[in-house]
Amino acid sequence: MPAVYCALVHHPVVDREGNEVTTSVTNLDVHDIARSARTYGLRGYFVVSPIEAQHPVVQRIVDHWTSGAGIQRFPERGEAIALVRLCLSIDDAIAEIEAREGETPRLVVTSAKAGPGRSTYAEEAARLRTESRPTLLLFGTGHGLSDSVLQRADVFLEPIAGPSDFNHLSVRAAAAITLDRLFATKSPANNPI
Amino acid sequence: MPAVYCALVHHPVVDREGNEVTTSVTNLDVHDIARSARTYGLRGYFVVSPIEAQHPVVQRIVDHWTSGAGIQRFPERGEAIALVRLCLSIDDAIAEIEAREGETPRLVVTSAKAGPGRSTYAEEAARLRTESRPTLLLFGTGHGLSDSVLQRADVFLEPIAGPSDFNHLSVRAAAAITLDRLFATKSPANNPI
Repeated sequence: MPAVYCALVHHPVVDREGNEVTTSVTNLDVHDIARSARTYGLRGYFVVSPIEAQHPVVQRIVDHWTSGAGIQRFPERGEAIALVRLCLSIDDAIAEIEAREGETPRLVVTSAKAGPGRSTYAEEAARLRTESRPTLLLFGTGHGLSDSVLQRADVFLEPIAGPSDFNHLSVRAAAAITLDRLFATKSPANNPI
Repeated sequence: MPAVYCALVHHPVVDREGNEVTTSVTNLDVHDIARSARTYGLRGYFVVSPIEAQHPVVQRIVDHWTSGAGIQRFPERGEAIALVRLCLSIDDAIAEIEAREGETPRLVVTSAKAGPGRSTYAEEAARLRTESRPTLLLFGTGHGLSDSVLQRADVFLEPIAGPSDFNHLSVRAAAAITLDRLFATKSPANNPI
């Protein structure tokens, strides 16, 4: 399994009008994406928010499940939540991965918007199988990652599409599907991406 | 697209000790799974709870997003939430599908537990392409659907597996991945299940 991390970005993201905003961290985003990250073998899950006042709240969630009453009642929750790292910016997350892995991560970005230069999941899954550098997968809250982030990407994944024209998955669902498409156990009968 | 429905079951499900319990309906389960169901072209999403006192609460969420202030600010939320049907039991959901489609639905169940007689996603996706009967996909809250439900299944899907031994995805993530595996737009380059 390659050294893959994910980050849930609360800034810089855009609102429905395309303005750059900062969203609030929510409890269930921390839990759901940690459980998905743990399932698919990721090495860490960064919760990125420049709002320092929200860090102690998230840290309290992490502490509760990894060392408090939570770990006794629900040890598997702690195992997932232990992947969570709080940081102020995407660059802080990159620096932490660099310190841990000895190399700057590739940036793989996700967006619900179609456009040129997108990579299929099959292509990225193939790259991940041979890639020696660490990888950081970025997911945006609100209406998605800001252009300033998208422009830094080494890889821009194509939008997740169903058989409808509706492209408003929750970020929890989109992250789960992305990890499944990239890392689900492959078998000829099961044939995931 | 075949006539496919899903249901989020709050009873009968089991707790971590395997006892049959009833769980509470949560706001984000209603939203997230409605958005995933809409993305993948499902005809309806049943929220199954025998606790009648919770129905007005869910109905208020549905009304807010489909006819209240919500639809003006976030029309795409209303489009997803419009799929939600509240019902007291799985049998009520089956009866509603039967009334609408003129035929009893096949029951397709999901579980995080491995065992004999499971169907791969590729097999079920192939069946759905030719199946004329409607289909009802069942997802369990808590620690999963009760045996009394699993035993009624026409199809028992294999557990979702990543490259780890951790099998504690949130039901929101599991539902999203299941719909993606069964209904994602297929292309040779993208190669989903």
